[in-house]
Amino acid sequence: MIPTVPQPISTAAVSDAMDSLHLAGWLRGISARVPTAAVCGPAYTVTYRGVDPVKGFRGAANYIDDVPDGAVVIIDNGGSTAITTWGSLLTTVARARGIAGTVIHGAARDIGEIRAHHFPLFSTAVGMTSGKNRVELAGIGLAVNIHGVGVHPGDLIVADDNGVIAVPAARAAEVLRRAHNVALTEERIAKLVASGVRLDEARRRLGYDQPWKCQASPERI
Amino acid sequence: MIPTVPQPISTAAVSDAMDSLHLAGWLRGISARVPTAAVCGPAYTVTYRGVDPVKGFRGAANYIDDVPDGAVVIIDNGGSTAITTWGSLLTTVARARGIAGTVIHGAARDIGEIRAHHFPLFSTAVGMTSGKNRVELAGIGLAVNIHGVGVHPGDLIVADDNGVIAVPAARAAEVLRRAHNVALTEERIAKLVASGVRLDEARRRLGYDQPWKCQASPERI
Amino acid sequence: MIPTVPQPISTAAVSDAMDSLHLAGWLRGISARVPTAAVCGPAYTVTYRGVDPVKGFRGAANYIDDVPDGAVVIIDNGGSTAITTWGSLLTTVARARGIAGTVIHGAARDIGEIRAHHFPLFSTAVGMTSGKNRVELAGIGLAVNIHGVGVHPGDLIVADDNGVIAVPAARAAEVLRRAHNVALTEERIAKLVASGVRLDEARRRLGYDQPWKCQASPERI
Repeated sequence: MIPTVPQPISTAAVSDAMDSLHLAGWLRGISARVPTAAVCGPAYTVTYRGVDPVKGFRGAANYIDDVPDGAVVIIDNGGSTAITTWGSLLTTVARARGIAGTVIHGAARDIGEIRAHHFPLFSTAVGMTSGKNRVELAGIGLAVNIHGVGVHPGDLIVADDNGVIAVPAARAAEVLRRAHNVALTEERIAKLVASGVRLDEARRRLGYDQPWKCQASPERI
Repeated sequence: MIPTVPQPISTAAVSDAMDSLHLAGWLRGISARVPTAAVCGPAYTVTYRGVDPVKGFRGAANYIDDVPDGAVVIIDNGGSTAITTWGSLLTTVARARGIAGTVIHGAARDIGEIRAHHFPLFSTAVGMTSGKNRVELAGIGLAVNIHGVGVHPGDLIVADDNGVIAVPAARAAEVLRRAHNVALTEERIAKLVASGVRLDEARRRLGYDQPWKCQASPERI
Repeated sequence: MIPTVPQPISTAAVSDAMDSLHLAGWLRGISARVPTAAVCGPAYTVTYRGVDPVKGFRGAANYIDDVPDGAVVIIDNGGSTAITTWGSLLTTVARARGIAGTVIHGAARDIGEIRAHHFPLFSTAVGMTSGKNRVELAGIGLAVNIHGVGVHPGDLIVADDNGVIAVPAARAAEVLRRAHNVALTEERIAKLVASGVRLDEARRRLGYDQPWKCQASPERI
């Protein structure tokens, strides 16, 4: 049950909120490929595996037609930097279907076209070699694990220029609430600083040590 | 014998065409340094080696004056991430001479100026340390080998935001023909999808398993 | 004693000037995070260390209020790619205080906001995990060592899209003088080439083997 997010929330604020709950969710090694493109939505997981050389090609990954509007596609291709599992055609379909963004533990191609679409794409690597005849769909809706962080279908994925963070669905409401408080605390500190207050003083007044409480009261400010 | 390319062809389409012929040409580890700058042209190979500490400096690499119009300079500096062999001065000369682009198995500097020129530059790394007195020209027009892919003078080099692919000159005509069919098939699939057809259905109708045949007939569409 | 720099000097020219004096200063592995943002100014060093798990959190790094106008903050966090020590709030304060730029042997977050500020930021990595409760200030004004290059407070830091170079304060005047001659020599070579002279000939006329002497006399040109 993921609540509506009234405005873009940064991965930094979500990360701080996760810290406050002793949760870890950063998907390390996965970088933003489209500057300024951010995304926030529930995970739709897609798992690939190498093609069995005996059995041969088993068909393209046509899961894309079934991804719900607003979802973030999470592709686990084992972190491959050599074989791509996303490109311009899937991006076109994703845009048409209202898919919110794509995160790949692996490589993508057609980066120029994807940037032209300003589609939120995050990946381990960029390449050009098609996955066709090299990898095949192993499953949809499976739990995946990226460098020790588990991602389940429906988990909240937040991604921006800093990278990607996954929030367990059961904790998403609490994490988002805290993240918004973190963002609000930072915003208030920035305003105090702009008014001439030293950063150390502004941080003290606004409870920077526990920003997710957003505990600033008028007298503290 | 490289045919005229009527319009920019993507490395992805060329890669798929190479796949269909069981050829490998991706120059791994070499990244686009100038977003959206793409290039297609015959290779002009330049090989560097470390300077013999006994013999000392042997002069700058002035090969640039002899590169033919439209060629793509392929510099093999052994993948060095420490020593640069390309910068703003060579870029200025390259632009003036109509050189199409440069691919370096190694590092480049003056990235800001090169971006301002929108010159298609691809390299393993970015740095600032000059190659002067550190490396010297070992030869022009030699075959080079980049992570297992051989590149000969006159091979067709295609490069864009995805990276760089080298096509053997003897296969270039066939590869380009197939690459254009791949691109056309993808374009037709995209149009079908835009008209409301599911991706799996569009792919089936247009022979996505062998896109280089561009075999779509009106009744299949 | 760092002289006024009349115009932006490139890291490439500074690197060549350092070469001519047999000095090494490139801070390897630290990349530009904000395209086209360059900086030149004296180093203000900040050293972090891991938080002692027994003693616990020791407070935020509020050194920023004491950084002098025009300085370049050099943060040594041991090259950590996991833990960030710079973000949007520090950037806002830095901008307000006239801090010239920041170089991190480690990671930064809030890259999108920092790009929007066009603040010159250079780092080993990008991430989102806060340093809070994970690292703490070990000292201000300590000498730091980044991959074998020592940086002392007051050393001249020059950084642009190529990366970052540190010039010992005692040599800064001589290095800058030579760097400007290098830049002038390159500019003159570029002009000769634009007028139709071959690059090898232009380089010969202008003393390209010792460009920091800027020794071109009218008859040589």
